[in-house]
Amino acid sequence: MQYPNGIKKEFVNTNSHSNRGMNLEADLNDTNEYYRYNDIAIIYKKPTPITINKVDYKSRQDAIIKEAHFKIPSTTDYNGVYKGKYIDFEAKETKSLTSFPLSNIHKHQICHLKNIYKHGGMGFIIVRFTKLNKTYLLFIEDLLSFLNNEKRVSIPISYFEKKAYIIKEGIRPRLDYLKIIDTRS
Amino acid sequence: MQYPNGIKKEFVNTNSHSNRGMNLEADLNDTNEYYRYNDIAIIYKKPTPITINKVDYKSRQDAIIKEAHFKIPSTTDYNGVYKGKYIDFEAKETKSLTSFPLSNIHKHQICHLKNIYKHGGMGFIIVRFTKLNKTYLLFIEDLLSFLNNEKRVSIPISYFEKKAYIIKEGIRPRLDYLKIIDTRS
Repeated sequence: MQYPNGIKKEFVNTNSHSNRGMNLEADLNDTNEYYRYNDIAIIYKKPTPITINKVDYKSRQDAIIKEAHFKIPSTTDYNGVYKGKYIDFEAKETKSLTSFPLSNIHKHQICHLKNIYKHGGMGFIIVRFTKLNKTYLLFIEDLLSFLNNEKRVSIPISYFEKKAYIIKEGIRPRLDYLKIIDTRS
Repeated sequence: MQYPNGIKKEFVNTNSHSNRGMNLEADLNDTNEYYRYNDIAIIYKKPTPITINKVDYKSRQDAIIKEAHFKIPSTTDYNGVYKGKYIDFEAKETKSLTSFPLSNIHKHQICHLKNIYKHGGMGFIIVRFTKLNKTYLLFIEDLLSFLNNEKRVSIPISYFEKKAYIIKEGIRPRLDYLKIIDTRS
């Protein structure tokens, strides 16, 4: 489920760990926890962007949000620092066997990653083809060159095989994506 | 109002621009907007961290959060990239004329900034003494050396005068804090 953005996370949280390893987001949260715990990198998932309409104040510490709406995110879900470098990425799953539908990523998120790259940060997307059990890291530079040269509404898996990096699944960490960053630095 | 964290922002948003320039957060949001618009840096305020308990699904696009709670933030409010550098900071106002109460910042936020520094990022706090109409930038290194050497529960303004950098208020941008970052790089 791609929309509303981030809601799955909230359910993963409230469901405790039942979903762990069952979805990309849980794998990335575990991986980032591992990176932080082992002092490798400081990378977090951002909170779900919402607009708050009604808040019930019993007390300052005990405010309850009574009405809020999900906002379309203006940035990506994950960012942080690794070896002094700014890291920024979006993660998406697709059930497709053949391609990644671009409708899964908001245009302004791609624009955001482009800006990150322009300002010397590292921007990428992590895409999991759930039915193929394959997870790829595609750098924004390579995503942009696809978008500039193709009019297609989805990125064929062949493009991932050619331009993206496969992230091997492990136990600790689940998805060692920083290993791929090292090859670029 | 420091708690619940971030709620003031939501009100600033819903009240449109009526509050602009009236508080530190609005000034920083304006400044970051200016930085992005002029292609100087990509820095955003993170969404308010919440835990969602109840969501009403009319449709996927039109979900309404019916119950949620504010979470104590595990990180800071602002981060992004400037000249390839990772930037991370927390911003607080105080009405005090003499000192900044450390109770305004969560311990794990200070710990987070310490980690950012350790990993080669730039971490700092921006503190505005509203009644003195003075806004300071204090780097985490200097905040830590205060915490390591003092047992006090608040940072006296004299320490800011000695160790912090004053951020002059302007029109565009309102608070050109990156100018201070340049002096450190």
